[in-house]
Amino acid sequence: MSPPLNPKRTLAELKELRKLTGDENGAQRVAFTPTWLKAREFLRAQVAGLPLEIHNDAAGNTWFTLRGKSERSLLMGGHIDSVPNGGWLDGCLNVFAGAEVLRRIHAQYHGKPPVTVRLVDWADEEGARFGKSLFGSSACSGNLDMNEARGLVDKQGIKLSDALENVGIDFERVKDSGLELQSAAAYLELHIEQGPVLLDLDLPLGAVLGTFGVERHAITFHGQAAHSGSTPMNRRRDAFLAAAKMSQEIYQIAERSGNGVCTIGSCTTKPGIVTSVVEECRITLDQRHLEAAQLATMLVEARTASEQFAKEGNVKVSWERIWQIAPRPFNDELIALCDEAIRETCGQSHRLPSGPLHDAAEVAATGIPTVMMFVQSLHGISHNKIEDTREDHLELCVTAFDRLAEKTIHWITSRE
Amino acid sequence: MSPPLNPKRTLAELKELRKLTGDENGAQRVAFTPTWLKAREFLRAQVAGLPLEIHNDAAGNTWFTLRGKSERSLLMGGHIDSVPNGGWLDGCLNVFAGAEVLRRIHAQYHGKPPVTVRLVDWADEEGARFGKSLFGSSACSGNLDMNEARGLVDKQGIKLSDALENVGIDFERVKDSGLELQSAAAYLELHIEQGPVLLDLDLPLGAVLGTFGVERHAITFHGQAAHSGSTPMNRRRDAFLAAAKMSQEIYQIAERSGNGVCTIGSCTTKPGIVTSVVEECRITLDQRHLEAAQLATMLVEARTASEQFAKEGNVKVSWERIWQIAPRPFNDELIALCDEAIRETCGQSHRLPSGPLHDAAEVAATGIPTVMMFVQSLHGISHNKIEDTREDHLELCVTAFDRLAEKTIHWITSRE
Repeated sequence: MSPPLNPKRTLAELKELRKLTGDENGAQRVAFTPTWLKAREFLRAQVAGLPLEIHNDAAGNTWFTLRGKSERSLLMGGHIDSVPNGGWLDGCLNVFAGAEVLRRIHAQYHGKPPVTVRLVDWADEEGARFGKSLFGSSACSGNLDMNEARGLVDKQGIKLSDALENVGIDFERVKDSGLELQSAAAYLELHIEQGPVLLDLDLPLGAVLGTFGVERHAITFHGQAAHSGSTPMNRRRDAFLAAAKMSQEIYQIAERSGNGVCTIGSCTTKPGIVTSVVEECRITLDQRHLEAAQLATMLVEARTASEQFAKEGNVKVSWERIWQIAPRPFNDELIALCDEAIRETCGQSHRLPSGPLHDAAEVAATGIPTVMMFVQSLHGISHNKIEDTREDHLELCVTAFDRLAEKTIHWITSRE
Repeated sequence: MSPPLNPKRTLAELKELRKLTGDENGAQRVAFTPTWLKAREFLRAQVAGLPLEIHNDAAGNTWFTLRGKSERSLLMGGHIDSVPNGGWLDGCLNVFAGAEVLRRIHAQYHGKPPVTVRLVDWADEEGARFGKSLFGSSACSGNLDMNEARGLVDKQGIKLSDALENVGIDFERVKDSGLELQSAAAYLELHIEQGPVLLDLDLPLGAVLGTFGVERHAITFHGQAAHSGSTPMNRRRDAFLAAAKMSQEIYQIAERSGNGVCTIGSCTTKPGIVTSVVEECRITLDQRHLEAAQLATMLVEARTASEQFAKEGNVKVSWERIWQIAPRPFNDELIALCDEAIRETCGQSHRLPSGPLHDAAEVAATGIPTVMMFVQSLHGISHNKIEDTREDHLELCVTAFDRLAEKTIHWITSRE
């Protein structure tokens, strides 16, 4: 008889998937493409031996259901799609680890676990083709902005709705997928960290506190173009000087906030020539925090600082919101269970927020108790072919995630 | 009998020139175009009543010569060409003020002044078409880089040498124009300030100390792209942070230098997206000073600061020289005469350096004693149709420039 959990099998499946759907530039499982469909076929083949109900919902998410004694269900989710030239583990790790957990539960409970256990492969988490991430999970959670999504086209000018129709999905009905969540009692997601925190701490695994809320703005400073040779320094209205002061300020704002991060990702100057003082300088500011109140404070502080710097430099400043999303804190009790599962597996755990968004954020937004587990990323790099994780860490994460699933089953039954 | 000097006539000529060669977008006297030739014809017509020898030299500069008792000559220079959509006074003020001075000298000395007096209309000071300013005066001074100039083409792909041939100039012989300077004893140039210094001081006129030397560099900071959500602040290698620190530093460098100026005119970021820490940030730095030693110090200080900021931010920095030119200080005795002429005309003078380059810088480089006089610019703006100067200031400048010419004639004869 084979052992109840076999993390090495997960590792083997991930490697086979890489061979099947990647090339010398990385993973190529872009949603709604033939390679993505091939990856999904491969996943179905791996769980063919289990008595699962398998179907695609109205948004194209694939559900693998192992019926239990109760209708109340434990959900495990991931996404098999990748960005073009992506990493081999981003998204699909969760799906294959979840498949291994289903096998273990099926074996341990002789096909009838105390609660229903479901694995979901979310459709188009990355949004690589249409620029809209979390498509399947946001349709399912009800948060998808239908008017915005209706207007989306890819680089070839193909509409999202037409691309969906090609894979059998009726765009106008995608939110019917929300029915899938009706009996959900908890949602678990395992993911590579995509950052350097666990690497720096030399820890394999961490419990995720939630996904950051994001405030994203363009800030434009308006000064006066003036000849670089004939304009005395004290007469200048230098838009770059004012904008540049923000670069150090955001580090202080982030530090005061506790766990927040702030990034100035781009800077453009007009007229942008070597012989003129900068008339107009536009920077983008991305601010993230796990707590809504702290995020709001960070935004106020940045705005106040920009106005102060504008005043000091005799320039004007204007703000334009690009995008925002609220923080999605995870469930405290599930975070504690995740910590326990990690400590039992490798001795030490660490709690950390998630900077990137994940499908778990959409599920958490519906009120379903949610937690994520992170496994260490090498290089702190993702969305790139060099994304990687140590093999012993991959095996550890399958074991810890399985422990978390088992603990969560008991947590669900204890609450009924 | 008309009065010996008539500044109102200069004003009237400048206005007529504007009507003849400008449009609703400003002056259109771009060198080597029909409108430029029309402007030159207009100038010749204005001095037709004087017994001048008039000829174009090998570089296309037009010389108006009033023979005096001595071959030693007083030169007055300007340029009738403008940038496209340029200001009405930039360059041509000097030419028409010079013509008025010639009339006064001719009248006062009954056609035979103590020294020869010559007005030169330099060809293509602006370099608007071929991107190479000071063409005629640098050919005459011998500083023109023939290899560089041979490769110049305009936006239509026409070579400089072909454009010159069209107006009767043999490119390979342009430096023969240097012969014109053989008997020169002094060079005077009147120009609008193109900056705000005299406006701020509420003074009509100033004596120019020389033209700034320029050091122009591109500075590139090389950091590491990283996800804006998952990268802790203390792990970042933020190229924008390091580059932005330069913006305040250059103001301190300029202040320490005394009269220097420093400008960061452009900033570009890579990858330049809202969700990534900046990997590469390139800024341009333009530094100017009247003293070569101070200019060199400013450059060293900027380089040292950039290396310090790079070190602080765990990024790298590289420098690339774009362009440089040495300072061209003017003649101390002529500066004193210029001051005197201004004080006698309007009570108060001010000495200031010139940020922009002028033909006078080329003449000064040959060793000919040189000085410039500036008249106040409104708005501190040039190379734009809104460039302007008060009419009473224009009349004052013609009077003061004429006084300077007279003083310089005596200065030349006293040195023989």
